[in-house]
Amino acid sequence: MNDTYPWPVFEADTVLPASVYDRVVPHAETPEALLAKGRTITARIQQVTPEDRLPGHKQPYYLRADRSERYLVAGTVVNVLARAADSGDMFEMATVTGGKGAGQPVHRHAQTHVALYLLDGEAELWLDGERFVMKKGDFASVPEGSEHGFRFCAHRTKMMVWYAGTEALAAIRALGEPTDCHVQPDDAEVAWDRERMAAAERAGDIAFADEMFPELPARAITRATLPEDTVPYTLAADEGRKFVGGPEYFALLASQENTGGKFFVVMSQGPESEMIPRHYHNLHTENFFCVDGALDMIVNRSRVTLSPGDFASVPAGAIHAYRMACPFTRFMGFLTPGLFQNFFETLGEPGYEANVYPREPHQLRFDRVLKELESLDLVVIEEQMREIEAAEAERA
Amino acid sequence: MNDTYPWPVFEADTVLPASVYDRVVPHAETPEALLAKGRTITARIQQVTPEDRLPGHKQPYYLRADRSERYLVAGTVVNVLARAADSGDMFEMATVTGGKGAGQPVHRHAQTHVALYLLDGEAELWLDGERFVMKKGDFASVPEGSEHGFRFCAHRTKMMVWYAGTEALAAIRALGEPTDCHVQPDDAEVAWDRERMAAAERAGDIAFADEMFPELPARAITRATLPEDTVPYTLAADEGRKFVGGPEYFALLASQENTGGKFFVVMSQGPESEMIPRHYHNLHTENFFCVDGALDMIVNRSRVTLSPGDFASVPAGAIHAYRMACPFTRFMGFLTPGLFQNFFETLGEPGYEANVYPREPHQLRFDRVLKELESLDLVVIEEQMREIEAAEAERA
Repeated sequence: MNDTYPWPVFEADTVLPASVYDRVVPHAETPEALLAKGRTITARIQQVTPEDRLPGHKQPYYLRADRSERYLVAGTVVNVLARAADSGDMFEMATVTGGKGAGQPVHRHAQTHVALYLLDGEAELWLDGERFVMKKGDFASVPEGSEHGFRFCAHRTKMMVWYAGTEALAAIRALGEPTDCHVQPDDAEVAWDRERMAAAERAGDIAFADEMFPELPARAITRATLPEDTVPYTLAADEGRKFVGGPEYFALLASQENTGGKFFVVMSQGPESEMIPRHYHNLHTENFFCVDGALDMIVNRSRVTLSPGDFASVPAGAIHAYRMACPFTRFMGFLTPGLFQNFFETLGEPGYEANVYPREPHQLRFDRVLKELESLDLVVIEEQMREIEAAEAERA
Repeated sequence: MNDTYPWPVFEADTVLPASVYDRVVPHAETPEALLAKGRTITARIQQVTPEDRLPGHKQPYYLRADRSERYLVAGTVVNVLARAADSGDMFEMATVTGGKGAGQPVHRHAQTHVALYLLDGEAELWLDGERFVMKKGDFASVPEGSEHGFRFCAHRTKMMVWYAGTEALAAIRALGEPTDCHVQPDDAEVAWDRERMAAAERAGDIAFADEMFPELPARAITRATLPEDTVPYTLAADEGRKFVGGPEYFALLASQENTGGKFFVVMSQGPESEMIPRHYHNLHTENFFCVDGALDMIVNRSRVTLSPGDFASVPAGAIHAYRMACPFTRFMGFLTPGLFQNFFETLGEPGYEANVYPREPHQLRFDRVLKELESLDLVVIEEQMREIEAAEAERA
């Protein structure tokens, strides 16, 4: 983490007009609660947690692949990307890596909406009474109360798990032990211990099913579109609700309509590009996970480069910008709460049907963004920053 | 590419005793031809080609993912990693990226041994009268004259193709046109043009089969061990002839017994590690391709970091060293001719059965390497370099 980027002290206490809250769909946190959080966060705008550490409170941080707090859980290494404490009680997040046979038996979370994305290898996925073969890039959305589980089929399989909740990770951790090792155990028959599982149920938001890995016919994940409301579903790799904007395309893997407004997941894909204007958000947290290529980011005073597997969490109030830094870059955004989805719907042209970014750039509708600014949780401050920097440079 | 690494001018004209040539198995180039090349190369020891350029003659060079010379060939982007001119007429190499339906119809090369490794997505593979489903990490070895072809099944599939020969890439290029675009065309029915295919047959070492993509029953690639001689075969992801050495494990995906001594392919997997001692080789070229994590390299005066998809070619005479730079790093080596296989067999403990690097480091048998040094194409010069650097530092 290069902390020498010249950044002036800047107090960001602007808040957006009330209209933005209309975009929070029912069941999300109340606008008042979000606003309170937004105000708290701006006080910490200059801090970025040192590389590879979980901050323990809500502030920007950056983790390189596989280097965070880790637990050895029944044949997998659980690498924690966010605990409730790090996200201001908004979400938790982890990668789960294991050999053939490792996984998590069928269970449900009463209060936690889960999203799964397969980063590497292959897995069997149980979801809501069905069984799927999950390949790299396949996605699943698992609302509160829906039964789900997975078991890995390749020598190294890596699953990303997003929890829109604050009590699930405690349960997963209670299944295992802290570990210093970075690598998954070798393929193995996992001996599941019902006592441990009961302890996990007491420790957090989890309830295991009677049958751990039911024998059901397994089928490939082929779904290419999002359902209309909050139901369990799978989505095939490189599918989703697609928009094109400028040189990139972005696909919603889960919209806020699929998550009761709690969050949405967007996969962006594009070529090397210019740094977008620096900006911040008052209400929502943006989490960046690099899948392919590289993402150069400015986060407050820091410049970081995300390589595949690296993660950055940018809460409300943190000034940030990014550019894609490789000819083929793919990164995921987990944005919570889901109110900022209208930005992507404003910037992008819907109905993009290709499965790869456009060979010739399309129009970028930033004009529409500017027109809609009042309804977006977005404060663009590139110009102000340049003025401040110019004044700083003159004084120096 | 950082070219500021302080490297003294160093003339490397040491050649190894004759015993090393005994390790070149039949059908490889003659020792005299290799020796002549070794002597030529040492004269260029200080040069490293600027990033992302093919040098046009045999010297070290470094290419970031997808940034080299590119051709649009029937629904794929062929990104050239090495032409015959860049390798001293030893090999050619490329990545082939495409959407669903793109690929190469069944063909054979009379004088070129091909190796295929699937970097991303999924493909159908035709090999020697059989049809396979090829997943990420699966490998195939295709001796001279063996029929093979592939067709992609995922929205983005990326295949690495190694040619132990000098005439195949000209044929592939003749199938298409140069392109500036970095990204594959979208999924498409590819219209194969028999006239173009005939032109390709005239341009280089290729002969197409009558039936382009024969309908055969397709099966998964499950083979876990190498055959004993030079025959076409497939190998499942993370399989091969495995050795453990220190914190890493390495697997031969193709041994020189499988290639008539022309080359071998080794996949190394390990945690973050120390820089190995600087060294050079008199006779063989080493090609490094990063699959996961990152590889820090010293190549002559340069320090480079290979991220996934990046490539470095290190011919005989180039001083080099490397370290794995991430908790989970995987890189492939294509070493040609195959005489240096005995190094891995000396350093490593054979019979490693796990599918992931060891959770506790094993012994590194460098003592055995030192004992066998006379039979290895290896000149370790770490100590000499430190003396030279110390003298330089004192003068400065």
